[in-house]
Amino acid sequence: MKVTLENVLPSEIERRSFEIITQELGDRELDPEQAPVIKRVIHTSADFEYADTLCFSEHVIEKALDAIRNGASIVTDTQMGRSGINKKCLAGYGGQVYCFMGDEDVAEAARKNGTTRAAASIDKAARMDGPLIFAVGNAPTALVRLYELIQDGVLSPALVIGVPVGFVNVVQSKELIMKTDVPYIVARGRKGGSNVAAAVCNALLYMLDETRGMGNGQEQRQT
Amino acid sequence: MKVTLENVLPSEIERRSFEIITQELGDRELDPEQAPVIKRVIHTSADFEYADTLCFSEHVIEKALDAIRNGASIVTDTQMGRSGINKKCLAGYGGQVYCFMGDEDVAEAARKNGTTRAAASIDKAARMDGPLIFAVGNAPTALVRLYELIQDGVLSPALVIGVPVGFVNVVQSKELIMKTDVPYIVARGRKGGSNVAAAVCNALLYMLDETRGMGNGQEQRQT
Repeated sequence: MKVTLENVLPSEIERRSFEIITQELGDRELDPEQAPVIKRVIHTSADFEYADTLCFSEHVIEKALDAIRNGASIVTDTQMGRSGINKKCLAGYGGQVYCFMGDEDVAEAARKNGTTRAAASIDKAARMDGPLIFAVGNAPTALVRLYELIQDGVLSPALVIGVPVGFVNVVQSKELIMKTDVPYIVARGRKGGSNVAAAVCNALLYMLDETRGMGNGQEQRQT
Repeated sequence: MKVTLENVLPSEIERRSFEIITQELGDRELDPEQAPVIKRVIHTSADFEYADTLCFSEHVIEKALDAIRNGASIVTDTQMGRSGINKKCLAGYGGQVYCFMGDEDVAEAARKNGTTRAAASIDKAARMDGPLIFAVGNAPTALVRLYELIQDGVLSPALVIGVPVGFVNVVQSKELIMKTDVPYIVARGRKGGSNVAAAVCNALLYMLDETRGMGNGQEQRQT
Protein backbone atom coordinates (compact mmCIF):
# COMPACT_ATOMS: atom_id res chain seq x y z
CA MET A 1 0.00 0.00 0.00
CA LYS A 2 1.33 3.41 -0.97
CA VAL A 3 -0.07 6.58 0.55
CA THR A 4 0.19 9.91 -1.24
CA LEU A 5 -0.17 13.09 0.73
CA GLU A 6 0.74 16.68 -0.04
CA ASN A 7 3.24 16.33 -2.82
CA VAL A 8 6.36 17.95 -1.43
CA LEU A 9 9.83 16.57 -2.08
CA PRO A 10 11.70 15.69 1.12
CA SER A 11 14.30 18.34 0.32
CA GLU A 12 11.54 20.93 -0.06
CA ILE A 13 9.68 20.26 3.19
CA GLU A 14 11.64 22.75 5.25
CA ARG A 15 11.31 25.53 2.69
CA ARG A 16 7.57 24.88 2.40
CA SER A 17 7.21 24.86 6.21
CA PHE A 18 8.88 28.24 6.49
CA GLU A 19 6.54 29.59 3.77
CA ILE A 20 3.53 28.43 5.80
CA ILE A 21 4.95 29.96 8.98
CA THR A 22 5.59 33.28 7.21
CA GLN A 23 2.09 33.22 5.75
CA GLU A 24 0.45 32.52 9.11
CA LEU A 25 2.45 35.23 10.85
CA GLY A 26 0.61 37.47 8.41
CA ASP A 27 1.00 41.19 8.79
CA ARG A 28 3.05 40.84 11.89
CA GLU A 29 6.24 42.85 11.53
CA LEU A 30 9.25 40.92 12.72
CA ASP A 31 12.66 42.49 12.98
CA PRO A 32 14.39 41.11 9.86
CA GLU A 33 17.47 40.07 11.88
CA GLN A 34 15.38 38.28 14.49
CA ALA A 35 12.91 36.71 12.05
CA PRO A 36 15.02 33.61 11.17
CA VAL A 37 15.38 32.76 14.87
CA ILE A 38 11.68 33.27 15.62
CA LYS A 39 10.62 31.26 12.58
CA ARG A 40 12.95 28.37 13.31
CA VAL A 41 11.68 28.15 16.89
CA ILE A 42 8.12 28.06 15.55
CA HIS A 43 9.24 25.45 13.03
CA THR A 44 10.57 23.17 15.78
CA SER A 45 7.56 23.63 18.07
CA ALA A 46 4.59 24.53 15.83
CA ASP A 47 3.91 27.08 18.55
CA PHE A 48 3.30 30.64 17.34
CA GLU A 49 3.37 31.95 20.91
CA TYR A 50 7.14 32.26 20.50
CA ALA A 51 6.58 35.20 18.16
CA ASP A 52 5.41 37.06 21.27
CA THR A 53 7.69 35.59 23.92
CA LEU A 54 11.14 35.58 22.36
CA CYS A 55 13.13 38.55 23.69
CA PHE A 56 16.33 39.83 22.14
CA SER A 57 18.90 42.15 23.69
CA GLU A 58 20.11 45.03 21.55
CA HIS A 59 22.14 44.00 18.47
CA VAL A 60 22.24 40.43 19.78
CA ILE A 61 22.08 38.77 16.36
CA GLU A 62 25.06 40.73 15.06
CA LYS A 63 27.00 39.97 18.26
CA ALA A 64 26.06 36.28 18.17
CA LEU A 65 27.11 35.86 14.54
CA ASP A 66 30.41 37.60 15.30
CA ALA A 67 31.01 35.23 18.20
CA ILE A 68 30.38 32.18 16.03
CA ARG A 69 32.64 33.57 13.29
CA ASN A 70 35.31 34.01 15.96
CA GLY A 71 35.13 30.34 16.92
CA ALA A 72 32.79 30.48 19.93
CA SER A 73 31.88 27.14 21.44
CA ILE A 74 28.39 26.32 22.71
CA VAL A 75 27.77 24.95 26.21
CA THR A 76 24.35 23.40 26.71
CA ASP A 77 22.62 21.86 29.72
CA THR A 78 21.20 18.72 28.10
CA GLN A 79 22.36 15.89 25.90
CA MET A 80 19.16 16.44 23.90
CA GLY A 81 20.23 20.00 23.15
CA ARG A 82 23.68 18.78 22.23
CA SER A 83 22.15 16.21 19.86
CA GLY A 84 20.05 18.86 18.16
CA ILE A 85 22.68 21.49 17.46
CA ASN A 86 24.35 21.26 14.05
CA LYS A 87 27.84 20.43 15.26
CA LYS A 88 29.30 20.04 11.78
CA CYS A 89 28.20 23.52 10.85
CA LEU A 90 29.60 25.02 14.07
CA ALA A 91 32.88 23.15 13.58
CA GLY A 92 33.24 24.96 10.26
CA TYR A 93 33.85 28.12 12.29
CA GLY A 94 36.08 26.39 14.85
CA GLY A 95 33.55 25.92 17.67
CA GLN A 96 32.40 22.80 19.49
CA VAL A 97 29.32 21.84 21.48
CA TYR A 98 29.76 20.80 25.10
CA CYS A 99 27.40 19.30 27.66
CA PHE A 100 28.97 18.59 31.03
CA MET A 101 25.85 17.22 32.72
CA GLY A 102 27.07 13.62 32.71
CA ASP A 103 30.64 14.39 33.84
CA GLU A 104 31.85 12.73 37.02
CA ASP A 105 33.63 15.88 38.29
CA VAL A 106 30.41 17.86 37.83
CA ALA A 107 28.39 15.29 39.80
CA GLU A 108 31.06 15.39 42.50
CA ALA A 109 31.09 19.21 42.68
CA ALA A 110 27.29 19.30 42.84
CA ARG A 111 27.27 16.82 45.71
CA LYS A 112 30.00 18.70 47.55
CA ASN A 113 28.41 22.15 47.15
CA GLY A 114 24.78 21.08 47.44
CA THR A 115 23.90 22.55 44.03
CA THR A 116 22.33 21.03 40.93
CA ARG A 117 24.55 19.41 38.35
CA ALA A 118 23.36 22.11 35.96
CA ALA A 119 24.83 24.84 38.20
CA ALA A 120 28.04 22.85 38.65
CA SER A 121 28.36 22.42 34.89
CA ILE A 122 28.22 26.22 34.49
CA ASP A 123 31.08 26.51 36.99
CA LYS A 124 33.04 24.03 34.91
CA ALA A 125 32.33 25.97 31.72
CA ALA A 126 33.43 29.21 33.41
CA ARG A 127 36.96 27.80 33.57
CA MET A 128 37.13 27.38 29.76
CA ASP A 129 39.01 29.69 27.42
CA GLY A 130 37.61 31.46 24.37
CA PRO A 131 34.22 32.97 23.58
CA LEU A 132 31.29 30.94 24.91
CA ILE A 133 27.61 30.72 24.01
CA PHE A 134 25.40 29.20 26.70
CA ALA A 135 22.28 27.43 25.44
CA VAL A 136 20.07 26.58 28.42
CA GLY A 137 17.00 24.56 27.49
CA ASN A 138 16.20 22.80 30.70
CA ALA A 139 17.65 23.96 34.00
CA PRO A 140 16.72 27.31 35.54
CA THR A 141 19.51 26.72 38.06
CA ALA A 142 21.99 26.94 35.16
CA LEU A 143 20.62 30.39 34.26
CA VAL A 144 20.71 31.49 37.90
CA ARG A 145 24.35 30.38 38.23
CA LEU A 146 25.16 32.24 34.98
CA TYR A 147 23.53 35.36 36.42
CA GLU A 148 25.57 35.08 39.62
CA LEU A 149 28.89 34.64 37.77
CA ILE A 150 28.08 37.48 35.35
CA GLN A 151 27.19 39.85 38.18
CA ASP A 152 30.37 38.87 40.03
CA GLY A 153 32.42 39.65 36.93
CA VAL A 154 33.73 36.08 36.73
CA LEU A 155 32.10 35.24 33.41
CA SER A 156 31.28 37.25 30.33
CA PRO A 157 29.38 35.06 27.85
CA ALA A 158 29.27 36.01 24.17
CA LEU A 159 25.59 35.04 24.26
CA VAL A 160 23.10 33.49 26.67
CA ILE A 161 20.24 31.56 25.09
CA GLY A 162 17.85 31.33 28.03
CA VAL A 163 15.02 29.00 27.12
CA PRO A 164 14.50 26.53 29.96
CA VAL A 165 11.02 25.04 30.19
CA GLY A 166 9.07 24.42 33.35
CA PHE A 167 7.12 25.44 36.36
CA VAL A 168 9.57 26.09 39.20
CA ASN A 169 11.85 29.16 39.04
CA VAL A 170 11.90 29.07 35.24
CA VAL A 171 10.10 32.38 34.65
CA GLN A 172 12.22 34.15 37.30
CA SER A 173 15.55 32.80 36.04
CA LYS A 174 14.84 34.18 32.58
CA GLU A 175 13.97 37.61 33.96
CA LEU A 176 17.29 37.62 35.84
CA ILE A 177 19.28 37.08 32.65
CA MET A 178 17.44 39.96 30.99
CA LYS A 179 18.66 42.23 33.81
CA THR A 180 22.31 41.65 32.89
CA ASP A 181 24.16 43.47 30.16
CA VAL A 182 25.27 40.32 28.31
CA PRO A 183 23.78 39.56 24.89
CA TYR A 184 20.75 37.29 25.32
CA ILE A 185 17.94 35.55 23.50
CA VAL A 186 15.29 34.54 26.03
CA ALA A 187 11.88 32.87 25.70
CA ARG A 188 9.91 34.74 28.32
CA GLY A 189 7.53 32.64 30.41
CA ARG A 190 7.38 28.94 31.10
CA LYS A 191 7.89 27.60 27.61
CA GLY A 192 11.13 26.53 25.98
CA GLY A 193 13.13 23.32 25.97
CA SER A 194 16.16 21.59 24.52
CA ASN A 195 14.55 21.63 21.10
CA VAL A 196 14.08 25.40 21.32
CA ALA A 197 17.68 25.88 22.49
CA ALA A 198 18.93 23.84 19.54
CA ALA A 199 16.65 25.70 17.13
CA VAL A 200 18.02 29.08 18.21
CA CYS A 201 21.61 27.86 17.79
CA ASN A 202 20.89 26.39 14.37
CA ALA A 203 19.03 29.50 13.20
CA LEU A 204 22.16 31.52 13.96
CA LEU A 205 24.39 28.98 12.23
CA TYR A 206 22.20 28.93 9.13
CA MET A 207 22.15 32.72 8.95
CA LEU A 208 25.91 32.55 8.52
CA ASP A 209 25.61 29.61 6.16
CA GLU A 210 23.31 31.48 3.85
CA THR A 211 26.06 33.95 3.22
CA ARG A 212 28.40 31.01 2.65
CA GLY A 213 25.94 29.22 0.37
CA MET A 214 25.80 26.08 2.47
CA GLY A 215 22.78 23.81 2.94
CA ASN A 216 20.11 23.93 5.56
CA GLY A 217 18.85 21.38 8.07
CA GLN A 218 16.32 20.52 10.72
CA GLU A 219 17.59 20.51 14.29
CA GLN A 220 15.59 17.50 15.29
CA ARG A 221 17.40 15.46 12.67
CA GLN A 222 20.98 16.34 13.53
CA THR A 223 23.07 13.58 15.03
CA MET B 1 26.54 36.98 44.49
CA LYS B 2 23.99 34.36 45.51
CA VAL B 3 20.43 34.46 44.22
CA THR B 4 17.60 32.83 46.14
CA LEU B 5 14.38 32.00 44.35
CA GLU B 6 11.49 29.73 45.22
CA ASN B 7 12.99 27.45 47.82
CA VAL B 8 12.62 24.00 46.29
CA LEU B 9 15.30 21.34 46.65
CA PRO B 10 16.63 20.12 43.27
CA SER B 11 15.29 16.66 44.02
CA GLU B 12 11.85 18.13 44.71
CA ILE B 13 11.51 20.25 41.55
CA GLU B 14 9.87 17.55 39.47
CA ARG B 15 7.36 16.63 42.18
CA ARG B 16 6.49 20.30 42.69
CA SER B 17 6.12 20.80 38.92
CA PHE B 18 3.64 17.94 38.69
CA GLU B 19 1.69 19.42 41.60
CA ILE B 20 1.43 22.73 39.74
CA ILE B 21 0.36 20.96 36.54
CA THR B 22 -2.31 18.97 38.40
CA GLN B 23 -3.53 22.15 40.09
CA GLU B 24 -3.77 24.08 36.82
CA LEU B 25 -5.57 21.25 35.07
CA GLY B 26 -8.21 21.93 37.74
CA ASP B 27 -11.48 20.09 37.49
CA ARG B 28 -10.57 18.49 34.25
CA GLU B 29 -11.12 14.76 34.45
CA LEU B 30 -8.24 12.83 32.98
CA ASP B 31 -8.35 9.09 32.56
CA PRO B 32 -6.19 7.92 35.48
CA GLU B 33 -4.16 5.60 33.23
CA GLN B 34 -3.51 8.36 30.69
CA ALA B 35 -2.87 11.13 33.22
CA PRO B 36 0.84 10.38 33.84
CA VAL B 37 1.52 10.57 30.09
CA ILE B 38 -0.46 13.78 29.61
CA LYS B 39 1.17 15.43 32.63
CA ARG B 40 4.69 14.47 31.62
CA VAL B 41 4.16 15.87 28.14
CA ILE B 42 2.92 19.13 29.70
CA HIS B 43 5.93 19.00 32.02
CA THR B 44 8.35 18.83 29.09
CA SER B 45 6.59 21.51 27.02
CA ALA B 46 4.75 23.77 29.50
CA ASP B 47 1.95 23.51 26.95
CA PHE B 48 -1.46 22.59 28.35
CA GLU B 49 -2.88 22.15 24.84
CA TYR B 50 -1.65 18.57 25.01
CA ALA B 51 -4.41 17.80 27.52
CA ASP B 52 -6.78 18.27 24.56
CA THR B 53 -4.71 16.89 21.70
CA LEU B 54 -3.23 13.66 23.04
CA CYS B 55 -5.25 10.72 21.69
CA PHE B 56 -5.07 7.20 23.08
CA SER B 57 -6.28 4.00 21.45
CA GLU B 58 -8.29 1.65 23.63
CA HIS B 59 -6.35 0.05 26.51
CA VAL B 60 -3.12 1.45 25.05
CA ILE B 61 -1.43 2.10 28.41
CA GLU B 62 -1.97 -1.47 29.57
CA LYS B 63 -0.71 -2.80 26.24
CA ALA B 64 2.30 -0.48 26.22
CA LEU B 65 3.34 -1.44 29.75
CA ASP B 66 3.00 -5.11 28.85
CA ALA B 67 5.21 -4.58 25.81
CA ILE B 68 7.92 -2.90 27.89
CA ARG B 69 7.71 -5.64 30.52
CA ASN B 70 8.18 -8.14 27.70
CA GLY B 71 11.41 -6.47 26.59
CA ALA B 72 10.16 -4.25 23.76
CA SER B 73 12.76 -2.01 22.16
CA ILE B 74 12.06 1.56 21.10
CA VAL B 75 12.81 2.83 17.60
CA THR B 76 12.87 6.61 17.27
CA ASP B 77 13.38 8.94 14.32
CA THR B 78 15.80 11.42 15.91
CA GLN B 79 19.01 11.37 17.89
CA MET B 80 17.38 13.99 20.13
CA GLY B 81 14.58 11.56 20.96
CA ARG B 82 17.13 8.85 21.59
CA SER B 83 19.02 11.16 23.94
CA GLY B 84 15.88 11.96 25.89
CA ILE B 85 14.57 8.46 26.53
CA ASN B 86 15.67 6.88 29.81
CA LYS B 87 17.72 4.06 28.34
CA LYS B 88 18.89 2.73 31.68
CA CYS B 89 15.32 2.32 32.84
CA LEU B 90 14.31 0.58 29.59
CA ALA B 91 17.34 -1.71 29.78
CA GLY B 92 16.04 -2.91 33.16
CA TYR B 93 13.24 -4.62 31.21
CA GLY B 94 15.53 -5.86 28.43
CA GLY B 95 14.78 -3.24 25.77
CA GLN B 96 17.08 -0.86 23.89
CA VAL B 97 16.61 2.44 22.08
CA TYR B 98 17.49 2.61 18.39
CA CYS B 99 17.76 5.48 15.95
CA PHE B 100 18.80 4.49 12.45
CA MET B 101 18.71 7.98 10.91
CA GLY B 102 22.49 8.27 10.68
CA ASP B 103 23.12 4.74 9.35
CA GLU B 104 24.90 4.43 6.03
CA ASP B 105 22.63 1.61 4.77
CA VAL B 106 19.58 3.74 5.54
CA ALA B 107 21.01 6.71 3.61
CA GLU B 108 21.79 4.35 0.72
CA ALA B 109 18.28 2.80 0.70
CA ALA B 110 16.69 6.25 0.82
CA ARG B 111 18.76 7.41 -2.16
CA LYS B 112 17.99 4.23 -4.11
CA ASN B 113 14.24 4.30 -3.42
CA GLY B 114 13.77 8.06 -3.53
CA THR B 115 12.31 8.13 0.00
CA THR B 116 13.27 10.03 3.13
CA ARG B 117 15.82 8.52 5.49
CA ALA B 118 13.03 8.43 8.06
CA ALA B 119 10.96 6.10 5.86
CA ALA B 120 14.02 3.96 5.09
CA SER B 121 14.78 3.68 8.80
CA ILE B 122 11.29 2.27 9.39
CA ASP B 123 11.98 -0.35 6.70
CA LYS B 124 15.17 -1.25 8.54
CA ALA B 125 13.30 -1.52 11.85
CA ALA B 126 10.67 -3.74 10.21
CA ARG B 127 13.36 -6.41 9.77
CA MET B 128 14.04 -6.57 13.52
CA ASP B 129 12.81 -9.32 15.84
CA GLY B 130 10.84 -8.88 19.06
CA PRO B 131 8.20 -6.38 20.14
CA LEU B 132 8.80 -2.84 18.92
CA ILE B 133 7.62 0.58 20.05
CA PHE B 134 7.95 3.34 17.47
CA ALA B 135 8.43 6.84 18.86
CA VAL B 136 8.14 9.33 16.00
CA GLY B 137 8.83 12.92 17.03
CA ASN B 138 9.93 14.48 13.81
CA ALA B 139 9.21 12.84 10.47
CA PRO B 140 5.67 12.42 9.16
CA THR B 141 7.14 10.21 6.42
CA ALA B 142 8.12 7.73 9.16
CA LEU B 143 4.48 7.57 10.29
CA VAL B 144 3.26 7.22 6.72
CA ARG B 145 5.67 4.33 6.10
CA LEU B 146 4.52 2.71 9.34
CA TYR B 147 0.92 3.03 8.16
CA GLU B 148 1.76 1.40 4.83
CA LEU B 149 3.60 -1.53 6.43
CA ILE B 150 0.84 -2.03 9.01
CA GLN B 151 -1.87 -2.03 6.35
CA ASP B 152 0.15 -4.48 4.26
CA GLY B 153 0.44 -6.82 7.24
CA VAL B 154 4.25 -6.60 7.19
CA LEU B 155 4.62 -4.91 10.57
CA SER B 156 2.65 -5.10 13.79
CA PRO B 157 4.09 -2.60 16.30
CA ALA B 158 3.42 -3.05 20.00
CA LEU B 159 2.84 0.72 20.14
CA VAL B 160 3.12 3.73 17.83
CA ILE B 161 3.86 7.04 19.51
CA GLY B 162 2.93 9.45 16.72
CA VAL B 163 4.02 12.93 17.74
CA PRO B 164 5.89 14.53 14.83
CA VAL B 165 5.86 18.31 14.78
CA GLY B 166 5.45 20.48 11.74
CA PHE B 167 3.55 21.98 8.90
CA VAL B 168 3.71 19.61 5.93
CA ASN B 169 1.81 16.29 6.07
CA VAL B 170 2.16 16.11 9.86
CA VAL B 171 -1.53 16.41 10.70
CA GLN B 172 -2.49 13.90 8.01
CA SER B 173 0.15 11.33 8.98
CA LYS B 174 -1.18 11.27 12.54
CA GLU B 175 -4.75 10.77 11.36
CA LEU B 176 -3.58 7.81 9.26
CA ILE B 177 -2.08 6.06 12.29
CA MET B 178 -5.35 6.53 14.18
CA LYS B 179 -7.14 4.63 11.40
CA THR B 180 -5.10 1.48 12.03
CA ASP B 181 -5.84 -1.07 14.71
CA VAL B 182 -2.40 -0.91 16.33
CA PRO B 183 -2.06 0.60 19.82
CA TYR B 184 -1.22 4.29 19.51
CA ILE B 185 -0.60 7.49 21.43
CA VAL B 186 -0.89 10.44 19.04
CA ALA B 187 -0.68 14.20 19.52
CA ARG B 188 -3.36 15.39 17.14
CA GLY B 189 -2.50 18.50 15.13
CA ARG B 190 0.80 20.13 14.29
CA LYS B 191 2.45 20.03 17.68
CA GLY B 192 4.82 17.42 19.03
CA GLY B 193 8.55 16.87 18.76
CA SER B 194 11.42 14.72 19.93
CA ASN B 195 10.98 16.03 23.47
CA VAL B 196 7.32 14.97 23.44
CA ALA B 197 8.23 11.54 22.04
CA ALA B 198 10.80 11.07 24.82
CA ALA B 199 8.35 12.31 27.45
CA VAL B 200 5.72 9.75 26.42
CA CYS B 201 8.29 6.94 26.55
CA ASN B 202 9.57 8.03 29.94
CA ALA B 203 6.07 8.44 31.36
CA LEU B 204 5.40 4.81 30.49
CA LEU B 205 8.72 3.69 31.94
CA TYR B 206 8.13 5.59 35.18
CA MET B 207 4.63 4.12 35.52
CA LEU B 208 6.30 0.73 35.69
CA ASP B 209 9.03 2.06 37.96
CA GLU B 210 6.55 3.29 40.50
CA THR B 211 5.44 -0.22 41.05
CA ARG B 212 9.10 -1.21 41.35
CA GLY B 213 9.92 1.65 43.71
CA MET B 214 12.60 3.18 41.44
CA GLY B 215 13.44 6.85 41.09
CA ASN B 216 12.10 9.36 38.65
CA GLY B 217 13.80 11.61 36.10
CA GLN B 218 13.40 14.40 33.62
CA GLU B 219 13.67 13.40 29.98
CA GLN B 220 15.59 16.47 28.98
CA ARG B 221 18.33 15.52 31.42
CA GLN B 222 18.88 11.94 30.34
CA THR B 223 22.15 11.16 28.60
